[in-house]
Amino acid sequence: MLIKLDVSTRQRIELVDITAEVKRVVKTSGVREGVCHLFCPHTTAGLTINENADPSVKTDLAAELSRIVPYSDNYFHLEGNSDAHIKASLIGASETVFVENGDLVLGTWQGIIFCEFDGPRQRKIWIKI
Amino acid sequence: MLIKLDVSTRQRIELVDITAEVKRVVKTSGVREGVCHLFCPHTTAGLTINENADPSVKTDLAAELSRIVPYSDNYFHLEGNSDAHIKASLIGASETVFVENGDLVLGTWQGIIFCEFDGPRQRKIWIKI
Amino acid sequence: MLIKLDVSTRQRIELVDITAEVKRVVKTSGVREGVCHLFCPHTTAGLTINENADPSVKTDLAAELSRIVPYSDNYFHLEGNSDAHIKASLIGASETVFVENGDLVLGTWQGIIFCEFDGPRQRKIWIKI
Repeated sequence: MLIKLDVSTRQRIELVDITAEVKRVVKTSGVREGVCHLFCPHTTAGLTINENADPSVKTDLAAELSRIVPYSDNYFHLEGNSDAHIKASLIGASETVFVENGDLVLGTWQGIIFCEFDGPRQRKIWIKI
Repeated sequence: MLIKLDVSTRQRIELVDITAEVKRVVKTSGVREGVCHLFCPHTTAGLTINENADPSVKTDLAAELSRIVPYSDNYFHLEGNSDAHIKASLIGASETVFVENGDLVLGTWQGIIFCEFDGPRQRKIWIKI
Repeated sequence: MLIKLDVSTRQRIELVDITAEVKRVVKTSGVREGVCHLFCPHTTAGLTINENADPSVKTDLAAELSRIVPYSDNYFHLEGNSDAHIKASLIGASETVFVENGDLVLGTWQGIIFCEFDGPRQRKIWIKI
C-alpha cells in the first residue's frame, strides 16, 4: 500500500525532520520486519538521512548546498528555480530504511530529513513498507 | 527477474529521459503493485529523478555538475574521466520507484533520467520489479 | 534478517571497498534471487558504488569531495565535522543492489565503497536481503 504523508514548508530552503511521522506510519502498518521505501514525488525537493540531534547540522547542510549550487548561475530554465532542481538531484528522491520488531531502525544520530529547496509549499512524501 | 534496458548516448555528457522505456518494462512485467528497483551498472554514469517537462532543467543540471566537478582538476586517475566517476557518485547508481495498478507512479513533473558522464557509449539499465 | 558488517577505518577520510564482504554475506544468506539493501547507520559516512579496479578513482573522489565541501567553511555545528555530515548527504546512506543465482551482481568495474568522512572509527554497515 502506498501511504502519502503531508509536509508543509515555510521557507524557500528548509530541512524538515520527518522521522517521527515516518515512525508512526511504520507502526500503524503492522509490518514487523522488512524495508520501508521513502519517495519524494517533487523535482525541487529531496530526502536525506542525517543528524537530527543538533539542528546546526541541517543549517550547515542547507547553507553549503547553496554555496555549491548558487541561486543564480546563468541557468537556462526560466522558472527561477534551477538551483532547486539541481540540489534535488544531488540529495536524491528516494531512501530505503529498515523495519525491525515493528519499528523503524536508524543509527543512533540519524533522522529522516525532507529537504525543501523551492518552498514554501505543501509537499508529499510517498511511503511503501 | 532482472531486465536489461539499452540506452545509447551520443555526447560525452548527456541526460536522457528513460521514463517511457521503464514504464513499458513495468507494464510488460504484469506486476500490479510493488516497487521497481533501477540500477546503473556503470561507474561513469548514474540515475536521477527530475523534471522531464522543460528540457532546460537537464541542460542546467549537466552544466552545473561540470562546474562543481570540472573535467580537469589535478586528478590521479589516468583515463581522463575522473570527473565522470565523481559525478556518478554524486548522482548515484540506484533509484527505487513505486508501482500501482500495474503502472509506474511518479510525481507530476518527474521523469527518470539516465545521466551519461563519459559518452558516447552503449549503456544498460538493470531493472527488478 | 538484518545483518551487521564491521568496517574499520584508519584515516579521517577513507574510501573502503567492501564488495568482497557484502558478497560473502549474500552467499551465506542462501538467497538465490532478489535485492540486497545496504544501509549506513552513521551521519558522517556514506555508501557509493564506483570503480574498484584502479584505486586512484577513490583517491580522486575523496579529494574532489573535499574541494566541493571544504573542512572549514564558517559552519555552525561545533563538533568540527560539518564537512563530514554534508559529504554524507551528497553521497547517500543507502544503496540497493541485485542478487542473481545466489550472488551479488554488479557492473564489470563496479565495487561497493564505504565512504568514511570522519574517521578513524569502528563503523557498521547494515544489510537486508
